[in-house]
Amino acid sequence: MLAILLDPASEKAMYIQIYEYIKEEILSGRLAYHEKLPSARSLAAFLQVSRATVDTAYEQLVAEGYVEPKPKRGYFVNSLEEFTWKPTPKNNLRNTLSGSHQKDHPAQKNDSPFEHSKTKTDERSPRPYTTPHWLYDFNPDAIDTAHFPYSIWKSLGKNELDQSDNFLMGENLGEPSLRSAIADYLHGSRGVLCSPDNIVVGAGLSHLLQMLCVLFDEKPSIAMEDPGYISARKLLTAGGCRIIDIPLKGGSLDAASLEDTDAKICYVTPTHQFPLGAVMPINRRQKLLQWASKEKGRYIIEDDHDSEFRYTGRPIPALQSIDKENRVIYIGTFSRAVSPALRTGYMVLPPALMEKYREKCGSIACPVPRWDQNILARFITEGYFEKHLNRMRKIYKNKHDFMVEQIRRYFPEDQFRISGDNAGLYVLLHYTGPIPEEEIEKRAEKNGIRLRSLKGYYASLSADYHPTCLLGFADLSEADMEKGLALLAHEVFLLPEPCPSESGLSAH
Amino acid sequence: MLAILLDPASEKAMYIQIYEYIKEEILSGRLAYHEKLPSARSLAAFLQVSRATVDTAYEQLVAEGYVEPKPKRGYFVNSLEEFTWKPTPKNNLRNTLSGSHQKDHPAQKNDSPFEHSKTKTDERSPRPYTTPHWLYDFNPDAIDTAHFPYSIWKSLGKNELDQSDNFLMGENLGEPSLRSAIADYLHGSRGVLCSPDNIVVGAGLSHLLQMLCVLFDEKPSIAMEDPGYISARKLLTAGGCRIIDIPLKGGSLDAASLEDTDAKICYVTPTHQFPLGAVMPINRRQKLLQWASKEKGRYIIEDDHDSEFRYTGRPIPALQSIDKENRVIYIGTFSRAVSPALRTGYMVLPPALMEKYREKCGSIACPVPRWDQNILARFITEGYFEKHLNRMRKIYKNKHDFMVEQIRRYFPEDQFRISGDNAGLYVLLHYTGPIPEEEIEKRAEKNGIRLRSLKGYYASLSADYHPTCLLGFADLSEADMEKGLALLAHEVFLLPEPCPSESGLSAH
Repeated sequence: MLAILLDPASEKAMYIQIYEYIKEEILSGRLAYHEKLPSARSLAAFLQVSRATVDTAYEQLVAEGYVEPKPKRGYFVNSLEEFTWKPTPKNNLRNTLSGSHQKDHPAQKNDSPFEHSKTKTDERSPRPYTTPHWLYDFNPDAIDTAHFPYSIWKSLGKNELDQSDNFLMGENLGEPSLRSAIADYLHGSRGVLCSPDNIVVGAGLSHLLQMLCVLFDEKPSIAMEDPGYISARKLLTAGGCRIIDIPLKGGSLDAASLEDTDAKICYVTPTHQFPLGAVMPINRRQKLLQWASKEKGRYIIEDDHDSEFRYTGRPIPALQSIDKENRVIYIGTFSRAVSPALRTGYMVLPPALMEKYREKCGSIACPVPRWDQNILARFITEGYFEKHLNRMRKIYKNKHDFMVEQIRRYFPEDQFRISGDNAGLYVLLHYTGPIPEEEIEKRAEKNGIRLRSLKGYYASLSADYHPTCLLGFADLSEADMEKGLALLAHEVFLLPEPCPSESGLSAH
Repeated sequence: MLAILLDPASEKAMYIQIYEYIKEEILSGRLAYHEKLPSARSLAAFLQVSRATVDTAYEQLVAEGYVEPKPKRGYFVNSLEEFTWKPTPKNNLRNTLSGSHQKDHPAQKNDSPFEHSKTKTDERSPRPYTTPHWLYDFNPDAIDTAHFPYSIWKSLGKNELDQSDNFLMGENLGEPSLRSAIADYLHGSRGVLCSPDNIVVGAGLSHLLQMLCVLFDEKPSIAMEDPGYISARKLLTAGGCRIIDIPLKGGSLDAASLEDTDAKICYVTPTHQFPLGAVMPINRRQKLLQWASKEKGRYIIEDDHDSEFRYTGRPIPALQSIDKENRVIYIGTFSRAVSPALRTGYMVLPPALMEKYREKCGSIACPVPRWDQNILARFITEGYFEKHLNRMRKIYKNKHDFMVEQIRRYFPEDQFRISGDNAGLYVLLHYTGPIPEEEIEKRAEKNGIRLRSLKGYYASLSADYHPTCLLGFADLSEADMEKGLALLAHEVFLLPEPCPSESGLSAH
């Protein structure tokens, strides 16, 4: 049996303490290759922790490749040989499948939540380094992948990989089939006025913003919503643009705030402000369009990031759809509606910018593999995309409603307020009680709960800021939402349980 | 019958005149929907041109969708309805498959040679606009796609599209499996010293250069070979860098030329200078490395663009492989070795830059879809890549040898010189005779021959420049190489035919 000294008062969750102890034993050689670990059940009994705590620790060790599960036999220590980086002899590509990861790989700081997803333990592929799993990750960037029509995508994929044309260079603006499908979709569902000739296909938002930076000869000053999309801010800065942070008023940007600035471009998320979640009202939209039309060279970047998922009221047409002066650059991606791994987005450029794009960037190849563009084009034109969106809208609405219901159940209204709950894949939970945000974050982490504070999206924090977190629900089951929220209420905010415990939180 | 007035003295090739006449007839409505065109044989007899000329014109009309071929029945005029852009009603994606291209689509200026490849005339997908085909396109950027192992790629693809993990966000630097495969390949075949942790996967050279521009806080002055890679030059300029053009000496860059400049970075193609084709000798390589190590923050970008295909002598190890001071940024792509449509490249960063990359760009997602990365990783690690390279090396060597042999046959040595003929997918043909380059280009175009002049790769033309063209051979059959070169010799350079005509050039 493993004599692990657990410290219940530690900052570290129990399962992390177990995971780290066993990892150290393996790395030091004290637990040898092929040695069998105690069963999760017996170790849990021995350590007086819940079975789930040991399971989580073991899963993490498996995910990182320290330990191998053998069906019906238990967990065994893996050969460490495989973790040492060995240069391979020349012209010997075949035998170098494993062994490409260093033993003491430094922890990668990476905010991407998907890094923590379960990893295959396929013998053929090297094991990616992963930081320990969170028990409950309320990730606002996650999507539900359980309901994606994989078999349809695969069958379209088989077909496209059969076309040898797809292996030749395609059009630099993107496949005509895809641009045409996007134009039809945007017109039909978002009211966007465009033809396929106005559309540039790119690799997600970051790549499209980089292309915009290339497009502008004189790097413009760009007004951005504060709070807002921090990655976009960083990228535009790196591309040579100066950012002017515009504090939001009542949840959206007021063009009056632009008047005294030298902003040439204004970057907004009018359909669903990121991260606050508000809709920009029509009078502000008109004011913003007026601002743009007042001076030559002014443009609005409309980032229509998760317009697909709206649960109450009518769909809100894009800002671009009421722009009569050709001042809106409309940007969208398929990251939420299809898959973030597809890395495909698009922008609709006003005619003058499109002309400039052809001139300055026309010789730069579209970064999306041609077959993927054609798979996506067929996914859209053959109706699967619409069907998938309709289905996901229902699924997300149910998850959203359940989430809101559970928040109402566990968090009393006198100290907690929900907002941003009409659309998108997360809600905001505002807290006006006495616990400081740092303490909230520390406690959450200790309990294996991953929270994102609204604070992180501000360039300069407003004076009336209260602790607020973004609670994503897209990839959580109802059971996990409930358990996670109960844990958050009980262990982090120290709230009494609203009803007899039914959430099985014995491990904590 | 169509009374087409052909002008043999026109700038335009015969087949273009026929194509344009019929297109105009269709657009004006004089040739109505469903009307049958005369058979190619009868129209050729009527117009007194070769059958091939009419065939080429008809093919172009089919490719652009004006005309539809019906097996055993002939060619029929297509409905123009399909070419008119119609906005679609809301939420009605299904019925919008065709009809997304405008009738009067402005001609797209696009240098990509693949634009001219045959396009599918699938009813479901909109027809891309294409400029008229060239009869002979000696495209230096082309690759041979006839011998790609499509069935293997497809079967790997089917497998990867089955993994739902591939639809979740992957690692931002690129899939560990792919970075590991690239590290092994580069070490084995190019001597490059790297681990998977030094590798960043990106979407082709242009995207990687854009990322480098983001990486450098103070935009550096970059020394570039002149002549050199013009697109890279443009991109780096757009990214805020200043370019210093360094005239080559004896075909390669001499680091002595950098001494009086403020260059921080030097961009070179040492294995196969693009476009001249020379190898940078070892003493110049050492001098260049010394230059870089002399001052903090100096780096060399090694663009190892077509190192895979070398026909004489031993393979030349990468400059990076002899760099002891960590000054070389090594960049490569799979565009030539696998497919330009894959849009996948990589860079190997020195440790200091890698650290900076993680810090500054670590939150930017890898632009290559996750499944494509894993298909490629398995293509490499399972040995298919090496097999494919070995096979293509033989095929290209045969094409190359045939090309050189035919050039020697048609172009006399007193006026023509071949160079750059040890590697890569094109050779250079230098001309010292009296015809000015403009005249050569005009005559070539009129005869349907697409040439790329070396002139276009110079920032400032050297005084001893003579008309020179890059003759690519990768996607040409032996028959086309011979016919094209014969036509070039006879019609453009007005050389006598070296032997009785056997190339069937009656149409010209």
